[in-house]
Amino acid sequence: MLNVGIIGASGYTGVELARILSIHPEVKLTVATSRQYAGKPLSAVFPNLRKRVDLLCEDLTPEQLVDRADFFFAAVPHKTAMALVPTLLAAGKKVVDLSADFRIRDAAVYEQWYQPHTCPELIAEAVYGLPELYREQVKQARLVANPGCYPTSIILGLAPLLREKLIDPSTLIIDSKSGTSGAGRSASVDTLYCEVADGFRAYKVGGTHRHIPEIEQELSVLAGSAVTISFTPHLLPISRGILSTIYATLSSAVSEQDIQALYESAYKDESFVRVCPAGTFPATQHVRGSNCCDIGVKVDARTGRVIVMSAIDNIAKGASGQAVQNMNLMNGFAEDCAIRGAAFFP
Amino acid sequence: MLNVGIIGASGYTGVELARILSIHPEVKLTVATSRQYAGKPLSAVFPNLRKRVDLLCEDLTPEQLVDRADFFFAAVPHKTAMALVPTLLAAGKKVVDLSADFRIRDAAVYEQWYQPHTCPELIAEAVYGLPELYREQVKQARLVANPGCYPTSIILGLAPLLREKLIDPSTLIIDSKSGTSGAGRSASVDTLYCEVADGFRAYKVGGTHRHIPEIEQELSVLAGSAVTISFTPHLLPISRGILSTIYATLSSAVSEQDIQALYESAYKDESFVRVCPAGTFPATQHVRGSNCCDIGVKVDARTGRVIVMSAIDNIAKGASGQAVQNMNLMNGFAEDCAIRGAAFFP
Amino acid sequence: MLNVGIIGASGYTGVELARILSIHPEVKLTVATSRQYAGKPLSAVFPNLRKRVDLLCEDLTPEQLVDRADFFFAAVPHKTAMALVPTLLAAGKKVVDLSADFRIRDAAVYEQWYQPHTCPELIAEAVYGLPELYREQVKQARLVANPGCYPTSIILGLAPLLREKLIDPSTLIIDSKSGTSGAGRSASVDTLYCEVADGFRAYKVGGTHRHIPEIEQELSVLAGSAVTISFTPHLLPISRGILSTIYATLSSAVSEQDIQALYESAYKDESFVRVCPAGTFPATQHVRGSNCCDIGVKVDARTGRVIVMSAIDNIAKGASGQAVQNMNLMNGFAEDCAIRGAAFFP
Amino acid sequence: MLNVGIIGASGYTGVELARILSIHPEVKLTVATSRQYAGKPLSAVFPNLRKRVDLLCEDLTPEQLVDRADFFFAAVPHKTAMALVPTLLAAGKKVVDLSADFRIRDAAVYEQWYQPHTCPELIAEAVYGLPELYREQVKQARLVANPGCYPTSIILGLAPLLREKLIDPSTLIIDSKSGTSGAGRSASVDTLYCEVADGFRAYKVGGTHRHIPEIEQELSVLAGSAVTISFTPHLLPISRGILSTIYATLSSAVSEQDIQALYESAYKDESFVRVCPAGTFPATQHVRGSNCCDIGVKVDARTGRVIVMSAIDNIAKGASGQAVQNMNLMNGFAEDCAIRGAAFFP
Repeated sequence: MLNVGIIGASGYTGVELARILSIHPEVKLTVATSRQYAGKPLSAVFPNLRKRVDLLCEDLTPEQLVDRADFFFAAVPHKTAMALVPTLLAAGKKVVDLSADFRIRDAAVYEQWYQPHTCPELIAEAVYGLPELYREQVKQARLVANPGCYPTSIILGLAPLLREKLIDPSTLIIDSKSGTSGAGRSASVDTLYCEVADGFRAYKVGGTHRHIPEIEQELSVLAGSAVTISFTPHLLPISRGILSTIYATLSSAVSEQDIQALYESAYKDESFVRVCPAGTFPATQHVRGSNCCDIGVKVDARTGRVIVMSAIDNIAKGASGQAVQNMNLMNGFAEDCAIRGAAFFP
Repeated sequence: MLNVGIIGASGYTGVELARILSIHPEVKLTVATSRQYAGKPLSAVFPNLRKRVDLLCEDLTPEQLVDRADFFFAAVPHKTAMALVPTLLAAGKKVVDLSADFRIRDAAVYEQWYQPHTCPELIAEAVYGLPELYREQVKQARLVANPGCYPTSIILGLAPLLREKLIDPSTLIIDSKSGTSGAGRSASVDTLYCEVADGFRAYKVGGTHRHIPEIEQELSVLAGSAVTISFTPHLLPISRGILSTIYATLSSAVSEQDIQALYESAYKDESFVRVCPAGTFPATQHVRGSNCCDIGVKVDARTGRVIVMSAIDNIAKGASGQAVQNMNLMNGFAEDCAIRGAAFFP
Repeated sequence: MLNVGIIGASGYTGVELARILSIHPEVKLTVATSRQYAGKPLSAVFPNLRKRVDLLCEDLTPEQLVDRADFFFAAVPHKTAMALVPTLLAAGKKVVDLSADFRIRDAAVYEQWYQPHTCPELIAEAVYGLPELYREQVKQARLVANPGCYPTSIILGLAPLLREKLIDPSTLIIDSKSGTSGAGRSASVDTLYCEVADGFRAYKVGGTHRHIPEIEQELSVLAGSAVTISFTPHLLPISRGILSTIYATLSSAVSEQDIQALYESAYKDESFVRVCPAGTFPATQHVRGSNCCDIGVKVDARTGRVIVMSAIDNIAKGASGQAVQNMNLMNGFAEDCAIRGAAFFP
Repeated sequence: MLNVGIIGASGYTGVELARILSIHPEVKLTVATSRQYAGKPLSAVFPNLRKRVDLLCEDLTPEQLVDRADFFFAAVPHKTAMALVPTLLAAGKKVVDLSADFRIRDAAVYEQWYQPHTCPELIAEAVYGLPELYREQVKQARLVANPGCYPTSIILGLAPLLREKLIDPSTLIIDSKSGTSGAGRSASVDTLYCEVADGFRAYKVGGTHRHIPEIEQELSVLAGSAVTISFTPHLLPISRGILSTIYATLSSAVSEQDIQALYESAYKDESFVRVCPAGTFPATQHVRGSNCCDIGVKVDARTGRVIVMSAIDNIAKGASGQAVQNMNLMNGFAEDCAIRGAAFFP
């Protein structure tokens, strides 16, 4: 039985971690921190956990935390995470960090999009926790940088095409749409029910979203050359789900059948990546609450472009589900333990 | 390993059964029927099941069905169910029937609200599958009549008060609100997205909903005398969830603390019934996707009435989750096997 | 042309007032106040008003306000309103106050549910602005207390039955459901999209909502005796709309046809109250964005109770639409000027 | 007073036409047809129209129709429309056709995407009813082809850039998202509440949507050369609204400020096109229920692309609102009569 702690349990990724861990047969959730709700039962903050998670929220220092568990999820904002991680690692603990702090391999790039990095020496050690690309490294890691939600949907969607050099990376246009849980659980007028419901809009238009360097880093590795993308995130009136619609010009004449076969082959052994049958496309409602990434492909013969559509649940495969997948790998558990359930529909 | 069949797999209760069974370690789903989708993979009808359920929909007679599994869920409409069940039982199979056909103990009452009953001799044998009330009988049953969704929320909400005779049953007013999945998956203008979204209305107003005789039957058993209720169902712009708000006049002076304690005591050993802490009340979003029933109570000193609020997921505890709970009991599995997960939130 | 000011323009009732006034041919919106957004165009706060309302938000004292318009809507919280109103009246202005400050005729009752009243001498003068009940008094008023949203739906729903003494008022149970805009536009975790969407819950259970004294006051006037109600408000995952489901025991044998006829007769000359044809019931989506109140009635012969259902748009007939209706009456404009539009559907 | 008829009143564009016409001071709605609901009051089909529109649905031939009004809206599907229009025109009536039948100037192109055209001789006469481009021609027309919803959002969004030849048209990628009312009011499993709510997906992926030839026709006119686009429509879980996110490579170095100024200048006299202030972008919730098209622009310096975002209400500016705008122009009424209202928010 692995003793596990959640640092930052009162956000949406925190409650999803607690929910998943409550049915995980190999782990015991021993500590959950929240400055704001310290002293309250976690199930008072999130009544869905009542009779399932019996733990008080605590406000603890990193030094106090190390005595309370052997494995940690850092579900706190960037900057806060890198202030905690060194202490945990120094105490011999393993960590999955859900923030952006260890995702960017080049500290200078990180600092350009975020702020100064306080432990750049740990970046080289951190493994980018997308198991479908880095499974063996994750197994060996003591620090895993859990990918961002948009990056997860986009990188899985593009990996086969980029590896095979079937598209011109300079033509990549990525139009992503995310559910509102991606905005977090802080009080804010912009994400009030009445501001979001029955509406739709873009945000951070024009190459300004902080997931861009992370996406470009991984797409560049796959392409074998530097990739620059156009990326526009939008806010959907749903709680959970991301759909990325990706456009690229084919670099050579390749049939839709060949591309379909390429994707089916690339992901045939992956439990969590599902290639839609030819002519069908993913929907966020079919991955909601599951750790799956559904991908559909289509060639537009009129324009010579390929369109890739990729859907995930932003809190599950885009955050907490993938974090547990990484934990499973890091500890020798079955990779799909506690996260193999199908999406709930409707 | 128990071989299990779902009869009527293409409705919302069917897909929920398949989802739950796909993570159940003790059973194997061996057959799924659907006249409409015969020959198609069930995962083509419900892509959330892709890579999780690998089965074609089939159109089979009861006689063909008996060779294909040892345990059956009948997830078909009333009348269709009673045409199937006798053949299944005669072949030595066990059945959980999700329709209304075996819920009403008095065939005459059944026939007044539905239509002629074709196998009234089986009614006496059928056990009303609300495990919190009839657990021991369910364990012995070969035919379980799975309760309706509204009845589940209401009976669990009222059982402690009626048993203790703390309320005047003639004053019972039950105002229930259900998610739209309760209306089923048939094409219909009334349940189109644009007709339901951003709206709210009642239906079957004035004592005409067919769940009324079922509710009154069980409340009468609990009260020890005939109970007649006012019941108004409403349609919520959500997919899953029922909240019943129940009003009754207290028959004697009893404090809110005593009622709170009564409920906590009544349900303290029940994994799926959760009494909200004093002063807090259930919300459908905290039971969504789970088999839980959350109950809150409050005394209105100004009027001498008690208010009970009871929330379930109508497809889970209100249908397929409870059906699996019954299957678990009927086969000696852990009662919460495959259904102990907490609700998804958000 | 009447010069009109909105005090508190940055809330949901403020933006609805501005929207309606922008198409009103007899008035000119000359000032809009908002402390928080002072100096910003109102159309930057509410982009739906772009090219329709060209006004900066201002932060003004009551003394400054009186020079800027001849008629005022106070769309600020209770307590704030009563600090402004005396100055406006003293300067010869007319006011519709959307807060609760002048709705309760008995200052002691007001103080029991709210806080001390700072200008009780104005209460007697204020007219309760439900035109269907108090049209002639509104026409003469210089201060109108605009009714609360729940009270509007309930009082209009019960007036015919109470006037004719057809129900026993002591049996009144009112189960109301409101859209989230009723919670206002302040940043709050409880009304975030992810907390409200796809969910449903009650709040202020057990006779604690501040609209109760207002409802009971007006029902008592109609009944000719003191009325005490059970009232439970619920939060709907919709932006606009209230549906009140009201139960009462009939005090004598009266047929559904007679009650239907009574309602049709009572409201036949009212443009904004629409009685649903027999056997049909209101839906919030059919009043959304309009100033209408739709009412349906049904007798439950099994229990001897009558059920009244009443639907309004809580921001329109429940607040800003009714406020404009009052302004129209106070100034001799056509009562339905700028508010006669049908609801938008879907 | 102009006598007006709606042919096909029981769809979502029909009810929106009836709603708008009910507040139009210059017209009288004299006939509304619906085969399905013939004999029923239109307000029984759409209760939002109760006490506002007093008309029975009728099932009439074109020959019967001509005696009942002087101006007609054809709100029926393509193919059905072209069977009616010749008779109406021959009788001297004017028509706004909301179907696709007269939008495509080249009958061969029409027949490639739809079916054989039965009155190609009328195509040349029909005016494409986008007033911002063809105002003078609309004023003179007796037959106006009302634009499609996606085309309206896209053409208005791109007109300034194409006219000034600032983008390379071969790089145009258009990612559009529509509310569910665009799918119409027919009973269908795909548009049930439970299939659409809390979800998001694309449809008609890969250059197959029938609006493509209409969009390319008008963009080609603006560009002065043949334009081929990539176009992907998506289904939003909202009732009303379209947001089109449009990407194109700038053909020369032009600053964001210059593009912003170009748009503001192009649309400064248009009441219904609103250019968002620099750095802000449109949202469907800010045009809902209004005839406005909101447009925002942004240059992505990293990629040399411009991003245009354009939002409309698909039933209003995308269908019935624009149809009334055309009727106003064709009859010499104020262009914004009955449609100048701001959007409802929230």
